[in-house]
Amino acid sequence: MNACHEDLTLWLDEDSDELIILDQTKLPGKEETVSISTARALYDAIRTLQVRGAPAIGVAAALGLYACAVRFEDETPEGFLYSLRKTKAFIASARPTAQNLFWALERIEKAADGGTIQEMLTHMRTEASAIFEEDIAICRAIGEHGLSLLKDGDTLLTHCNAGRLAAVKYGTALAPVYAGMERGMHFQVYADETRPLLQGARLTCYELHRAGADVTLLCDGMAARLMQEGKIDAVIVGCDRVARNYDFANKTGTLSLAVNAKFFGVPFYVAAPSPTFDAGCATGEDIVIEQRPGEEITEGFFSARTAPEGIGVYNPAFDVIPHTLVSAFITEKGVIRLG
Amino acid sequence: MNACHEDLTLWLDEDSDELIILDQTKLPGKEETVSISTARALYDAIRTLQVRGAPAIGVAAALGLYACAVRFEDETPEGFLYSLRKTKAFIASARPTAQNLFWALERIEKAADGGTIQEMLTHMRTEASAIFEEDIAICRAIGEHGLSLLKDGDTLLTHCNAGRLAAVKYGTALAPVYAGMERGMHFQVYADETRPLLQGARLTCYELHRAGADVTLLCDGMAARLMQEGKIDAVIVGCDRVARNYDFANKTGTLSLAVNAKFFGVPFYVAAPSPTFDAGCATGEDIVIEQRPGEEITEGFFSARTAPEGIGVYNPAFDVIPHTLVSAFITEKGVIRLG
Repeated sequence: MNACHEDLTLWLDEDSDELIILDQTKLPGKEETVSISTARALYDAIRTLQVRGAPAIGVAAALGLYACAVRFEDETPEGFLYSLRKTKAFIASARPTAQNLFWALERIEKAADGGTIQEMLTHMRTEASAIFEEDIAICRAIGEHGLSLLKDGDTLLTHCNAGRLAAVKYGTALAPVYAGMERGMHFQVYADETRPLLQGARLTCYELHRAGADVTLLCDGMAARLMQEGKIDAVIVGCDRVARNYDFANKTGTLSLAVNAKFFGVPFYVAAPSPTFDAGCATGEDIVIEQRPGEEITEGFFSARTAPEGIGVYNPAFDVIPHTLVSAFITEKGVIRLG
Repeated sequence: MNACHEDLTLWLDEDSDELIILDQTKLPGKEETVSISTARALYDAIRTLQVRGAPAIGVAAALGLYACAVRFEDETPEGFLYSLRKTKAFIASARPTAQNLFWALERIEKAADGGTIQEMLTHMRTEASAIFEEDIAICRAIGEHGLSLLKDGDTLLTHCNAGRLAAVKYGTALAPVYAGMERGMHFQVYADETRPLLQGARLTCYELHRAGADVTLLCDGMAARLMQEGKIDAVIVGCDRVARNYDFANKTGTLSLAVNAKFFGVPFYVAAPSPTFDAGCATGEDIVIEQRPGEEITEGFFSARTAPEGIGVYNPAFDVIPHTLVSAFITEKGVIRLG
């Protein structure tokens, strides 16, 4: 694994066999890391969004499940496998929507394919490292393919954070921006703040500004006006799960954006690594949508109350966006044009 | 003027000739009033949204300009009229989009139609009281006409606050809800929180919950999902200015909502008192849109920073919504069906 952690969102510490993650709940104010080596800590880190973004959740689950397994106290392979399955099920329950979470946990469990405990751990470590390296390569390739849809000087609009902080490195929706910058191209990026947890304001603006990119923040409801004014050349977002018919799930607010892009004739692109495609899911109706605590809305991000006590709160974490609103998916294997 | 201030957003204190407003920046936490008798205080109250909502701004300007004029120290009618015009221009510059502001100030200036200073003050006071009473009657009538578009049990979605807090009493978009409740009807209301200043969360939820209505809060970007799920029978919003072709301006986020309502086939109603119609404005392109400070977005409502320093911020206060997205305008004179 990469020894330089400068631009990594998470990694495995070689000496301690601990998962290290950049704590994203502290950004943009503080750059702090958290060490994880227990199932509870991993579950909480995923649940509370210390690590978030479908690709990053997948890699964290892979490295994290290995970090937990190293510490199992079982003395027989059977006991070890029992602990592994129990731990895997617990971690999988942290968030129901991200396909990458289940996909990564499956791969690590399958790597524990018999032999001694030490042999299984070695295979699991190799598999977790492969998932880590693959994520970097996938995002890199998405960046290259995404560039084919853009031209120098384009103004892009994105929602939530599907940048490097949502993956190990480069990110998905923002990968073309980084790939373009490496070639001396210039993009202007408008970032939806993304209520309720402000991943756009806190994370997308942070990482793009830190990388020297031109980024402008807006409230989610303002994107329509930008499109009406003709200022947006393309919308580009990530996704958490893609069904067989190309309906997809992504952060709440994405549906509204997709409908507006269709109405104003703005291309709508979805960056989607292969692990995000769920062959077991026929259409968007099969995607389970996580409902999150109402306090995320009523108490903002800083525990200050912004709405009266006693009211109802509607807080789905994700939207399901029909494929009819998508111009193209950008995967690491190439561009899939729909619209 | 009404002696019972229980359900009033603003009024003139009979004894002191001061404008009294409920300070809306303190809601929902505290119910505090502010007394206003200088142009600077009135300008600041409008600018900082202590009083907001097109109808309430109009009435506040009328009562407030009178409260200022009572205190002019001019000794001649000419001097008095000069001070009046200067004060009027200053107050008019507080917010450029609300048509009611200019309309109300014009009426008060015209009431000062010669004679002694005392005579002019008497006429201005009468005119300000008339504007105050008319606003209550207009909102009441909008409530009745709006009810004709709804049926008992409907689920409504609204944006920002066009309730009693946006007017003297009853409000505009929420007037049909109150009128229905008086008849024993039940509506479920979903309230967009309305970034950046959370008027939906703070004000709409506050006033509906206080009135015993069924209100559920959501983030602005979540409205599309509710419509996709078929949960919304109608969207109903207020407006700040209506052009001759029925394009209209309303709080930022309204355009996105209107586009989604059109896409999902949900009726989109605009409650619009006559003073909001601007005969001098041909289409939405003629409406000046106020740009507000970026800190409203980057520092939330509680001065806590939620985005990195140094980024750009896009913060228009209003959207202009093309008339093609409107099903009907609800005025005090009746319903104008468009779509």
